[in-house]
Amino acid sequence: MITLRPIGVVRSPYHDTKDIPRGPDTRHDAEGTLDLNPELEPGLQDIEGFSHLFVLWIFDRAEPGDLIAHPPIDDRPHGVFATRSPRRPNPIALTVVRLLSREGAKLRVRGLDMLDGSPIVDIKPYLSSVPAEELRRGWLAEVEARSRRG
Amino acid sequence: MITLRPIGVVRSPYHDTKDIPRGPDTRHDAEGTLDLNPELEPGLQDIEGFSHLFVLWIFDRAEPGDLIAHPPIDDRPHGVFATRSPRRPNPIALTVVRLLSREGAKLRVRGLDMLDGSPIVDIKPYLSSVPAEELRRGWLAEVEARSRRG
Repeated sequence: MITLRPIGVVRSPYHDTKDIPRGPDTRHDAEGTLDLNPELEPGLQDIEGFSHLFVLWIFDRAEPGDLIAHPPIDDRPHGVFATRSPRRPNPIALTVVRLLSREGAKLRVRGLDMLDGSPIVDIKPYLSSVPAEELRRGWLAEVEARSRRG
Repeated sequence: MITLRPIGVVRSPYHDTKDIPRGPDTRHDAEGTLDLNPELEPGLQDIEGFSHLFVLWIFDRAEPGDLIAHPPIDDRPHGVFATRSPRRPNPIALTVVRLLSREGAKLRVRGLDMLDGSPIVDIKPYLSSVPAEELRRGWLAEVEARSRRG
């Protein structure tokens, strides 16, 4: 058993899961802040040099789920570890955001897909990308191809 | 407080932190397996379609650290959230690996940077990359530039 303590909270425009855009080709452009606990501000030194961050946070309002997920964008079930479903064995979430600015212990960011009030457990710099030509995106690519064909 | 349960364990060639390659331009090509608990195998259905995975795991052998980190590759300190230091407020780690194959609840992967035996808490599909031309890599880019100049 591992115990994590929230280091802060997400302030986002989304107050209900149905407000969060989803589906093939969705872009997340929502802006908001990552409000870290004020005593953690020294841990943010030099973070402004990074354009993108990984935010690790908690699906604190997700119901426990099954090992088989039913993503809303597909009519076929998939193993939960092959999805980003919030209903997973450990309710931990990962979002890549663009860092816009910092004011003290608050980071203004773009690319939120979290509910307002979600607890943050870690922030890490995004250092490198897998080149697009090396990526295979499994069932998600199939859903996108089907949706483009209409 | 959030409690996580390990879903499996990393089997890697690294048994001591000093064996793990680090420094500017390091590439992680080590191969090994992510051994999930056998009862979780249904959660891996369709994961073979993805070339890359995010592995969330625990720095279970890291000492508690300070908010200011002293990365081994730089002679200047940085805020811990601007580093990948294992000594962070929540000892949670993130690694991108390439999925080579699956056998039951074991995933053979390339790109490990974990110690053998590290607990895994989640696996997620890697769906998209930040384009390289949009990335800024802060102090790390400066260290790399200095090291190339010799």
